[in-house]
Amino acid sequence: MKQHTKSNDLFEDLRRLPVKKVRKAIRNGLYSGHTAGIGLGHLQGNLVILPASYALDFFRFCQRNPKPCPLVGVSDTGDPMMRTLGSDIDIRTDIPLYNVYRDGNLTDQAQDISDLWQNDYVAFALGCSFSFEEALMAEGIRLDHIEANKTVAMYCTSLNTKPAGPFVGPVVCSMRPMLPTDAIRACAITSRYPHAHGEPVHLGDGKEIGIKNISKPDWGDTPIFEDGQIPVFWACGVTPQAAIQTAKPPVCITHAPGSMLITDIPSWETVSV
Amino acid sequence: MKQHTKSNDLFEDLRRLPVKKVRKAIRNGLYSGHTAGIGLGHLQGNLVILPASYALDFFRFCQRNPKPCPLVGVSDTGDPMMRTLGSDIDIRTDIPLYNVYRDGNLTDQAQDISDLWQNDYVAFALGCSFSFEEALMAEGIRLDHIEANKTVAMYCTSLNTKPAGPFVGPVVCSMRPMLPTDAIRACAITSRYPHAHGEPVHLGDGKEIGIKNISKPDWGDTPIFEDGQIPVFWACGVTPQAAIQTAKPPVCITHAPGSMLITDIPSWETVSV
Repeated sequence: MKQHTKSNDLFEDLRRLPVKKVRKAIRNGLYSGHTAGIGLGHLQGNLVILPASYALDFFRFCQRNPKPCPLVGVSDTGDPMMRTLGSDIDIRTDIPLYNVYRDGNLTDQAQDISDLWQNDYVAFALGCSFSFEEALMAEGIRLDHIEANKTVAMYCTSLNTKPAGPFVGPVVCSMRPMLPTDAIRACAITSRYPHAHGEPVHLGDGKEIGIKNISKPDWGDTPIFEDGQIPVFWACGVTPQAAIQTAKPPVCITHAPGSMLITDIPSWETVSV
Repeated sequence: MKQHTKSNDLFEDLRRLPVKKVRKAIRNGLYSGHTAGIGLGHLQGNLVILPASYALDFFRFCQRNPKPCPLVGVSDTGDPMMRTLGSDIDIRTDIPLYNVYRDGNLTDQAQDISDLWQNDYVAFALGCSFSFEEALMAEGIRLDHIEANKTVAMYCTSLNTKPAGPFVGPVVCSMRPMLPTDAIRACAITSRYPHAHGEPVHLGDGKEIGIKNISKPDWGDTPIFEDGQIPVFWACGVTPQAAIQTAKPPVCITHAPGSMLITDIPSWETVSV
């Protein structure tokens, strides 16, 4: 618990620091928490590291499913530096916390994967919802889960991804309750963020996309609907993790949920003009 | 010349046919001409076929250079069917005319590459400017090269692509002369077509992007400027061809310029909402 308190203190410090200093603190093992609200104004990304023998199929999986898997950067084979996402981003150390999967099962967590890095690894960075949530709040749309400091509700759906090699699985959606007037504006605003899942994939009755009970999300906290709010569903970055668990590569390293890669890319550069 | 006349007659027939019948005629070797104005309302694509050993780097090249190289579809390794772009699209036969490059040099043209197809080939389809030109004309913006039945002017520029493995080279731009009022609207309209090169990369003085003489394009016809028109530059699909000539893969098959893949995808599906 002490660790957690220290982490929270540091979180407030990190919020005030420029991204290069934030990444340096993370690289030095000082912070293993979530990155929401840190490095504001900069693109953050989900991480998937795979051996090169799986990279071409995973690339195809992302190309075929751009809403859940919007690629924002891909490393050279064996090169741990994410050169197109900033200067001096070392993907082995610059994420607060990593998940290590072996044969599709989560086996370890680590703050540093330098020991695990291999010459045939390829790192994929995928856009995440932080960018569009920032934009929604800037436009005055309130997000209940953020105000309540909870995790957004996420659901397995009956929508299917387009498969690529061993990568296949359902589209996982995040859901935000909104009044119809806000939902309309949220559709317009998020459509400008194709690198952060873009516009919603569904709104209204969750049953139409296979969600039996909206009060029982598969991940995240139970959502609370205020009078008149309807569910609005966006494709979610958990989708590739589900596909990886099906593909069962011998090894795969991802970020731990919420602990993203903070890039040097200004958020506006990825906004559809 | 007779061939050419026949081709022109057939062109008028093809313009009136639905895309599946157009592709059937092409598959049967009946047409080897350009596809501008055929299959209107459907996404067309540039083609690049490479051996799998080059595919991961070329994928990276496209991801890193989305304006000149907007990926719209990638085949499975060894599978000649472009399954994500339509039903029954055989990439070995369904393009009017192919260019075959060996070690970076154009060595052959063919209407059918079934004999050349190998089990390790990967086919990449990249968006082309036809989609946004259609949209510009629909919005009342006149395009001089189309009215004059000429080829758009294209230039090597001093802008560089982000390299990936052996793939590197300049950004090639197409240029369309426009009045400033039209240029402004063209920026807004084409920004909605990220799968067709998106918004311009430059406007005004070509010297700023290394073009010494605007009247001497590197490809296409000499542009004619009317009073008050300024040059507007878009990233162009010749860019990957230049990178392939640098990379010199043992074999690479592309479409012949202007003879594109016509997909089943409605143009509106790729428009940024």
